[in-house]
Amino acid sequence: MLDRAPAGRDRTALIDEYFRTSFVTDNDLITEAIRRMLAAGGKRLRPRFTLLAAEAVGARGEDHLRLAAFMELIHVATLIHDDVVDGAETRRGVNATAVDFGNRISVLAGDYLFAWIFKNVTAGYPAPIPHVLSATLADITDGEVLQLRALGELGTTRAAYVEVAAKKTASLFAASAECGALAAGGSPFAVKALRDFGTAFGIAFQMRDDLLDLTADEAAIGKPVGNDLRERKMTIPLVLALESGDREFRSDVERFFAQGDVTRERIASIVSGIAAQGGLAETEAVLAAYVERAKQSLAPLGSAPARTELAALADALLS
Amino acid sequence: MLDRAPAGRDRTALIDEYFRTSFVTDNDLITEAIRRMLAAGGKRLRPRFTLLAAEAVGARGEDHLRLAAFMELIHVATLIHDDVVDGAETRRGVNATAVDFGNRISVLAGDYLFAWIFKNVTAGYPAPIPHVLSATLADITDGEVLQLRALGELGTTRAAYVEVAAKKTASLFAASAECGALAAGGSPFAVKALRDFGTAFGIAFQMRDDLLDLTADEAAIGKPVGNDLRERKMTIPLVLALESGDREFRSDVERFFAQGDVTRERIASIVSGIAAQGGLAETEAVLAAYVERAKQSLAPLGSAPARTELAALADALLS
Repeated sequence: MLDRAPAGRDRTALIDEYFRTSFVTDNDLITEAIRRMLAAGGKRLRPRFTLLAAEAVGARGEDHLRLAAFMELIHVATLIHDDVVDGAETRRGVNATAVDFGNRISVLAGDYLFAWIFKNVTAGYPAPIPHVLSATLADITDGEVLQLRALGELGTTRAAYVEVAAKKTASLFAASAECGALAAGGSPFAVKALRDFGTAFGIAFQMRDDLLDLTADEAAIGKPVGNDLRERKMTIPLVLALESGDREFRSDVERFFAQGDVTRERIASIVSGIAAQGGLAETEAVLAAYVERAKQSLAPLGSAPARTELAALADALLS
Repeated sequence: MLDRAPAGRDRTALIDEYFRTSFVTDNDLITEAIRRMLAAGGKRLRPRFTLLAAEAVGARGEDHLRLAAFMELIHVATLIHDDVVDGAETRRGVNATAVDFGNRISVLAGDYLFAWIFKNVTAGYPAPIPHVLSATLADITDGEVLQLRALGELGTTRAAYVEVAAKKTASLFAASAECGALAAGGSPFAVKALRDFGTAFGIAFQMRDDLLDLTADEAAIGKPVGNDLRERKMTIPLVLALESGDREFRSDVERFFAQGDVTRERIASIVSGIAAQGGLAETEAVLAAYVERAKQSLAPLGSAPARTELAALADALLS
């Protein structure tokens, strides 16, 4: 779905080629763990944002491949730690790093990767790029802590959800676009436009991810359906279903979270409840508004072809 | 023991005062977890290195308290993750963060703290300080991975041990001294002298830590005696005992690591074996050589009073 953008596949190939030929750390065990996770797939959206942002301000994307690669690696490092935090067994359809290498190596591999990225970024890129990236990592982890604390909290508001999504997910999309524009010497207006695009895109992206968890089939998303419900995550379809839903539905969700019965049948009944309360349709509407906002953010970029591609990536988030 | 240096207690108090009055992050749960770990004690050696290094090149230590605090916080962040990695139950005599807050929060709290430190350092300090700190964190985690891979490896050489100690432990002492000198505008010679001091000091410090694990009483070190043996760590007394020891001792250690009998009696028998093979005495000798090297590194600093204090901190590592 997300590869609908015209030159998307080419850039993805360019990025994968860069990883295959140029990615190595000083620690061979960690290099191996990271290569495996990269080989397992992923759409490379974050590095594509960096390349497209550079192009949008008039540079050649290929000249910023290394910076783009760091964006994917920050994502990979957070995934490695997420899988420890979540006790996940699979990621992108293959065993999680923690399963094959153990939690101990996973914690250290994530730490090493963060440090290795900052070591390279501080040596190779001018201010404020290193600062943007470290602030982004602080946002991501802050968002994850907020999310953990809100697990099973039926009172979670739409605003609280958006704060978590903005930090945990959107901040890295925003930074990926911002840093591409910064590295390519974009104007402050263009840099801000691209950052704002990344933020709105990232929130919509998280909402689509939440929907897929409820509606996609297991093979397509590489993890069990209803996984978020099992983990008691307050996803946007659930938040919106509770916001507008009846008392009976709320009681049912309370029982579900309290009892820990996570059979397929029970999960399916909660998903039906969310749909019946309008949670899915309402999410599509809110998501569409963020896609619209993302595209409007790009106005300062004029008629750059990269703008059209970014807009197409946002449109691809629509159902 | 390590507070023998003349003004050591004053600087420690200054640093603790700084934490009490000025340390806060944007995430209150994480701030609380870190404050608790700070309140549990610690000698604040790393931030004291930063202050002393600044003084050694002619600045006022107090003017570099904030930078010094980051050094302790990097240490704290690595401790939080170590306790997840090691499954530790206590740290500095109180419950490990992971015990009170759970592994999930511990992984995230460590990540957040790393990110928060880099966010602040990249915003407030010129090159190469942010790079030195991120390279240090890469070294620390690389050293920990190397250590994990060497667990129970009876063939571990003295050189392999020193590589791990240099990365895992000494790199942060080296960076603490180096950054203090850099921030205070020290000459390249002084910066290198202080970095070299930190490296040699840190290796000796790790050796003393290894010895204490075998010989100190539980109350003094805040963790069980022989803990390293339980974890199958190749500490320097064990490495040296095996290097010069007889075949019978080696077989006994092999059995110990293979059988997993970690009763107090069995641990005590291994400690006796290490002592009988000369592992303790030999470690004292090697440690003393690193202390000497540390002090010699300080020669370029002339007669600065801070030099005398740093030398006294190194001497305090002697038995």
